[in-house]
Amino acid sequence: MIIDKLYELSNKKSPICIGLDTKVNFIPEYLSNNDKLDISDKMFIFNKAIIDNTADIAACYKVQIAFYEAHGIEGLIAYKKTLSYIREKGNIVIADVKRGDISSTAEQYAKAHFSGDFEADFLTINPYMGFDAIKPYFKYLDTGEKGLFVLSKTSNPSSMDFQGLSHEGIPLYMHVAQKIEEWGANYRGKYGYSNIGSVVGLTYPEEFLRIKNIAKHTFFLIPGYGIQGGKGKDISRIFNRNINAVINSSRGIIAAHKGIDETENFVRITRQKALEMKKDILEWL
Amino acid sequence: MIIDKLYELSNKKSPICIGLDTKVNFIPEYLSNNDKLDISDKMFIFNKAIIDNTADIAACYKVQIAFYEAHGIEGLIAYKKTLSYIREKGNIVIADVKRGDISSTAEQYAKAHFSGDFEADFLTINPYMGFDAIKPYFKYLDTGEKGLFVLSKTSNPSSMDFQGLSHEGIPLYMHVAQKIEEWGANYRGKYGYSNIGSVVGLTYPEEFLRIKNIAKHTFFLIPGYGIQGGKGKDISRIFNRNINAVINSSRGIIAAHKGIDETENFVRITRQKALEMKKDILEWL
Repeated sequence: MIIDKLYELSNKKSPICIGLDTKVNFIPEYLSNNDKLDISDKMFIFNKAIIDNTADIAACYKVQIAFYEAHGIEGLIAYKKTLSYIREKGNIVIADVKRGDISSTAEQYAKAHFSGDFEADFLTINPYMGFDAIKPYFKYLDTGEKGLFVLSKTSNPSSMDFQGLSHEGIPLYMHVAQKIEEWGANYRGKYGYSNIGSVVGLTYPEEFLRIKNIAKHTFFLIPGYGIQGGKGKDISRIFNRNINAVINSSRGIIAAHKGIDETENFVRITRQKALEMKKDILEWL
Repeated sequence: MIIDKLYELSNKKSPICIGLDTKVNFIPEYLSNNDKLDISDKMFIFNKAIIDNTADIAACYKVQIAFYEAHGIEGLIAYKKTLSYIREKGNIVIADVKRGDISSTAEQYAKAHFSGDFEADFLTINPYMGFDAIKPYFKYLDTGEKGLFVLSKTSNPSSMDFQGLSHEGIPLYMHVAQKIEEWGANYRGKYGYSNIGSVVGLTYPEEFLRIKNIAKHTFFLIPGYGIQGGKGKDISRIFNRNINAVINSSRGIIAAHKGIDETENFVRITRQKALEMKKDILEWL
């Protein structure tokens, strides 16, 4: 089961997920000024350097497809190469695509992101359309080798616009978290966690604890660390050792070199930031 | 304003939106059996034939990106060519991407789908993350040339899983519809409708009427006609003449030739189905 592998890696290496939100202005000058490279090469070489220098620290990588879509076909070639490189090396990749559609359309998304050019291990999914937006992925989940992370409570300020609306005294994000727990019942691995996990932001610790109390078999993908304000101490309010979550940091790690080191040695800073994050989280667990 | 143009085209031609959900097995045999063409060519040539034979009937086209993503880079080349061809001819294209993300990620999606390779006129958006998932598109909406269709009540059976949950006696989809009306207040065109429209399924007419009563400045994108069960008569329960909506049909039009005409004349059937849909809708208005 892919969730068992993620659980093992997060306990063996660290519960860090490195977010490859590769904005072109994060690319160091030694690459961005090289006129022989196209945008696709620049993005991929940058990502590869980060992966090569952090794979012993990070449990997994999350690749936010928007940063690649923004550069059209060229950007998506870098996306394809990045996913392929992460998986070739035996690492886990979460495609942060937040797709949310139904029936034949969702079948196509499942095919798109669980096979072929853009094959990933996990996808993020938006639950607004209900179970119809989840079921078409079951064909791939049945293999045990693929998983989902479904949004319940996101980390952004306006997440409460709708996620916080209460039905029968229970906010929407709790109804969603409950459904995620149910949908994943047939996909539990040997540690008790399901291949259908959930995205819950670190910036709302009270809400997180509430979700954790009802979602006993749910593994979490946690955005909001670092730039968005979350700290290792916040994790300790929610989890003990043997944490059933991975915590994502993007800019805080992959853009840390900007203005400090624009040479091919930039990865020293990347690595240092990943190690600092690992320390910050583990010292509180 | 792009919404004025869409309103005019829907009243001049018909309120039909043709959905280019180009599943490869919809492609007629004369193309699919041609070994000299790659998948990208086959998808684009098929789409082009449909566009050339329906552009005088349809108000707009909706292209569901999932069907292209499923074929990786090659599929997305067909997607790019299709959007470009529709826009070159002065027609309106809605990119059915249902993206729903925040801050710098949403900025990247806006760039991806409102400029460059994948430039469209309208995007579909998922509101689960709240206003943060809408605001980053305002930069493009400010030009007057771009618009959004935000999901409120979708057409699928499990749409009620979450959209139907009531907060203070009002279901979630109504809260969303109300917010869409508010978010669009600064983007209204000369007919009173906003560049921020909403997706509301035809399969729930009662819910649709409830939304229409509070969303006086909202233009609608309506899925669910044909295969999903909606009929022209259902439209007449919701709208009068000067309809502020476009109604999408995909398979019912673009797959109608399958097993009947697999030659390059397949578009006669496509055109006939589009004309039948136009008649079915207009006779009830």
